[in-house]
Amino acid sequence: MPEFFRVLTPDDAWQRLAEHYRPIPRPETILTADAHDRVLASGAYAPHDLPEFNRSTVDGYAVRAQDTFGASPSLPAFLDVAGEAQMGQAAVQPVRRGEAILVHTGGMIPPGADAVVMLENTQTADERSIEVLTALAVGENVIQVGEDVRTGDPILPAGHRLRPQDIGGLLALGITSVSAARRPRVAILSTGDVVIPPDQPPGPGQVRDINSYTLTAMAQRAGGEPAPFGIIPDQRPELESAVRRAVDDCDIVVLSAGSSVSYRDMSVDVIAGLGEPGILAHGISIRPGKPTIVAVSQGKAVFGLPGNPVSAMVLFDLFVAPAIRLALGAAPFPAFQPHVQARLARQISSAAGREDHIQVRLEERDGELWAVPVFGKSNLIYTLVRADGVVRVHLDSLGIEQGAWVQVTLHK
Amino acid sequence: MPEFFRVLTPDDAWQRLAEHYRPIPRPETILTADAHDRVLASGAYAPHDLPEFNRSTVDGYAVRAQDTFGASPSLPAFLDVAGEAQMGQAAVQPVRRGEAILVHTGGMIPPGADAVVMLENTQTADERSIEVLTALAVGENVIQVGEDVRTGDPILPAGHRLRPQDIGGLLALGITSVSAARRPRVAILSTGDVVIPPDQPPGPGQVRDINSYTLTAMAQRAGGEPAPFGIIPDQRPELESAVRRAVDDCDIVVLSAGSSVSYRDMSVDVIAGLGEPGILAHGISIRPGKPTIVAVSQGKAVFGLPGNPVSAMVLFDLFVAPAIRLALGAAPFPAFQPHVQARLARQISSAAGREDHIQVRLEERDGELWAVPVFGKSNLIYTLVRADGVVRVHLDSLGIEQGAWVQVTLHK
Repeated sequence: MPEFFRVLTPDDAWQRLAEHYRPIPRPETILTADAHDRVLASGAYAPHDLPEFNRSTVDGYAVRAQDTFGASPSLPAFLDVAGEAQMGQAAVQPVRRGEAILVHTGGMIPPGADAVVMLENTQTADERSIEVLTALAVGENVIQVGEDVRTGDPILPAGHRLRPQDIGGLLALGITSVSAARRPRVAILSTGDVVIPPDQPPGPGQVRDINSYTLTAMAQRAGGEPAPFGIIPDQRPELESAVRRAVDDCDIVVLSAGSSVSYRDMSVDVIAGLGEPGILAHGISIRPGKPTIVAVSQGKAVFGLPGNPVSAMVLFDLFVAPAIRLALGAAPFPAFQPHVQARLARQISSAAGREDHIQVRLEERDGELWAVPVFGKSNLIYTLVRADGVVRVHLDSLGIEQGAWVQVTLHK
Repeated sequence: MPEFFRVLTPDDAWQRLAEHYRPIPRPETILTADAHDRVLASGAYAPHDLPEFNRSTVDGYAVRAQDTFGASPSLPAFLDVAGEAQMGQAAVQPVRRGEAILVHTGGMIPPGADAVVMLENTQTADERSIEVLTALAVGENVIQVGEDVRTGDPILPAGHRLRPQDIGGLLALGITSVSAARRPRVAILSTGDVVIPPDQPPGPGQVRDINSYTLTAMAQRAGGEPAPFGIIPDQRPELESAVRRAVDDCDIVVLSAGSSVSYRDMSVDVIAGLGEPGILAHGISIRPGKPTIVAVSQGKAVFGLPGNPVSAMVLFDLFVAPAIRLALGAAPFPAFQPHVQARLARQISSAAGREDHIQVRLEERDGELWAVPVFGKSNLIYTLVRADGVVRVHLDSLGIEQGAWVQVTLHK
């Protein structure tokens, strides 16, 4: 075993990566309407006030609040209806003392008016006038110019991933294109003489490559652009040339290697030979996924994941997806991690100093939610297919008692 | 107000929709590798066992367990090393009594062997033989044929949305194409003389259309194929012809109408005129979003959402996204709703009989997470842009005290 094999905690391994992997997001201009789920490369500022004119929040009459002073159902204020403000047009006719102008929800408040009385709080007095049954405060039922956003306000910071409402907020201000971070290219390589493409019938001793496909889907979901390198034969020259090509062409390189020691050693040698700073972690105190390699070379992040499909996915989630977010200029880890609370259906034991990721199925029993560990020898792929989510057992913990409440992070 | 305006609870409104909207998913065959996030139209079954051969879970020696009976460090079992099973090839050479064959993790177990001893539990005795330092049980460190999945096992049901691991599980079995539900077409119409396309400068009294874009992004996320119908002028014939075209061409029709009473009445009339069973709910006891129309005609679901951008998004989430999932043959509502626990930073009052959706920002204060309500007059779009998630106040609740723990569903 090479001498640098020293197992790091997941946090320490990430810290070492973050020290050396400092990608600079590459901006590109895209249409805001197409920017859902993209990450902003520069902050956005309001080019003008929103709304740009005082708007009514109700159907009613625009009035001068002082004309309604003291009004009540028993002592209504009488106002002359001077007209109607049409939707989508400038309200130019002013409201003078003792007057009211009909306005619609969202419509412009005519000059002179400073409040709107809801239709429900009025009565028709005659053809040309109404009774106002309530006193209004200045500004009542009116959205003021700039009440949503003011000119120059920062609206969304660089590194923000655009949600549907953010698209709406940008377009409301006429920001029809944005500077977004280009999707980092994520090279995905499978190695091993055991794996064959899934559309071929495996011979004896062979299995179909699945990591290429699970990791491609995960890379896409994290905001990356997967670059499939296929299956690389388990020979040193082929592996070395493929990995070098991947480092040259891509921003992040993910190798899922065979799981036997000889294959792992070959990946280590190849990754170690890529150049400074090289391997930052080899072996992480986590189960599954211990034999993981984290490296940086030529400013690119390089990961050697275990070949086991469950290990590969768990480690991708913990290291590669955050690295993709870093390359996008976004926060590598979500600020808040939503979860489901459930009771643990079976005791879990763990070793101190090791973080365990336990796949669980969720089951409702008598109105309570239970997390049932899905165990499988060697973490076969169906361990994950059968799981609804994962329970993390902290480094310092020796396990979790049956019946204890745990937080389950759902698989998406 | 039309006489059928009777406010329904969100649940009752959904129940009425679910009674009349019974879409039949339309299958199409797609590559499994491209099927991430798609919904299965038919259940998948295992065409063969997985694994197809007995595999080693470790690097070590394949042995006959009985040959290690009673072995211990002080009394090792001596075995002859008869060869090595190469990875990716059939292991044909049998393990005979007193023999061991070198195997690698994931490799095929040779005939005759029924257990694998880890390298760590052996010592080299001489060039041709090893000492085994531990007794093995039959099956130890071996994955048996079919241990992951057996021939004919149901592996994923119809209606299941494919996660990365599901893609892996299917490909592991050589299932390279699947029958997926076609994405339902979701017509998105904005109406109103007030709204203009976002790339145009609004005149006085005009605002930019944003609902078309927020709802398009939400329709995509829910698995639909958005069909943008643009901005329809607020004239009865134009609206009627656009809605009829949308019902003919699409599976689901979403109208976000102006919010004033006259516009709402026009949408109601147009939707009511579409044909049986017609309007199922007009007015839902929810805030924001009360003036919502739910209808079915020609087997299509038709929604009239309020023009207010926050109301439109909240109601889309509660009604349209579940309808899209129904059209895909999936469960309309997720079985488990992940959330974040936080303390409410300000008291919220609600009315009994009304479900309130309160937009909140999350803030960490002294190590505790707090949910700070984002209030905004008339629910302007930046209410949602500034929010991290939403707190639901149940129909029966009169509100939530400041400091109470609440569940926050994060905006995605």
